[in-house]
Amino acid sequence: MIKEDLQKQIEFIKEIDKIKYIRRRTKLFNSDRNENDAEHSWHLALMAMVLSEYADEKIDLCKVIKMVLIHDIVEIDAGDTFIYDENKNHENTAEELKSAKRIFGILPEKQAAEFIELWTEFEDGISNEAKFARSMDRLEPLLQNTSNNGGTWKEFGVKYETVYEKKKAIRNGSKELWEFAENLLSDSVKKGILTK
Amino acid sequence: MIKEDLQKQIEFIKEIDKIKYIRRRTKLFNSDRNENDAEHSWHLALMAMVLSEYADEKIDLCKVIKMVLIHDIVEIDAGDTFIYDENKNHENTAEELKSAKRIFGILPEKQAAEFIELWTEFEDGISNEAKFARSMDRLEPLLQNTSNNGGTWKEFGVKYETVYEKKKAIRNGSKELWEFAENLLSDSVKKGILTK
Ligand SMILES: [Ca+2]
Repeated sequence: MIKEDLQKQIEFIKEIDKIKYIRRRTKLFNSDRNENDAEHSWHLALMAMVLSEYADEKIDLCKVIKMVLIHDIVEIDAGDTFIYDENKNHENTAEELKSAKRIFGILPEKQAAEFIELWTEFEDGISNEAKFARSMDRLEPLLQNTSNNGGTWKEFGVKYETVYEKKKAIRNGSKELWEFAENLLSDSVKKGILTK
Repeated sequence: MIKEDLQKQIEFIKEIDKIKYIRRRTKLFNSDRNENDAEHSWHLALMAMVLSEYADEKIDLCKVIKMVLIHDIVEIDAGDTFIYDENKNHENTAEELKSAKRIFGILPEKQAAEFIELWTEFEDGISNEAKFARSMDRLEPLLQNTSNNGGTWKEFGVKYETVYEKKKAIRNGSKELWEFAENLLSDSVKKGILTK
């Protein structure tokens, strides 16, 4: 007989498969195929592995990786909110918290609490790890949009000032990566793929 | 001006996006949509996070997570080899090593060496971390195939004995997960979704 804990863990592993159907607005690099949340989370984890040396503060890289891997699981219930959507608040909604409790709640109690805590830490964006994880989350679509001639900026008519405001969160994790991002944004304006 | 190292790292981040186009034979849970390597790698990392308590030997979980996240990047050049393909060796081919050198070689030298070492460790399957990582890699498609009424076993006429042989690698990482897997295989035979 399978132990109760393992049964719950296997059920969780099956449940989170649904993240592969959650489509983001952003497209893959040089592509018009939408990225899904599993692909996005994988890419952020790889970015954290590769770019950790640029973190301004001391970070536990392992924690950053875990954070980005789980940060969008709540979207299985709550859906992906477009960052430039003016009608819906992108941040920590009641709906997402409910989703976190349901999905992580499939796990054995202690493990569920750990996952919810990790997700909450990411959402709060206060710890060194959360700040760096959120930098990765802002940087990936910036790289994608520049590779796609403006991507979602063009598609949804988002202006430089709005993009700049959202991307500023990169600075909280890394001044060097923010400098790189700022240059990318200026270059995008020069190239005409982002308008002021 | 962007530093040379950062330039290389950004180039690597763009290059590995291609893993999202590498389709596996195995389908998502309860689905007929093929899984891609980014989704697969993400799922293995989550499984490692959730199931680490079942590892028989002491493992550095962070290392396991990193291993599974990067283990299939070589398939960008080498392609996915079907585990039950009788004509092509699934394991550590010269083609995969060449691919590892090219793709990880995009990174700054020291980092490239670290990634190649980590990938080689996974391929060798000797360290505690590699053994557990490989258990995850065997367990995921087993869960998927049972959720899909036999999935690739039925599609490609793979018999119980062959599946059993391949899945035995799970035992190297965790006796408890292997016991669970053995039961799943026996149940699959009883249900008629896997034939002896
Ligand atoms: Ca593989």
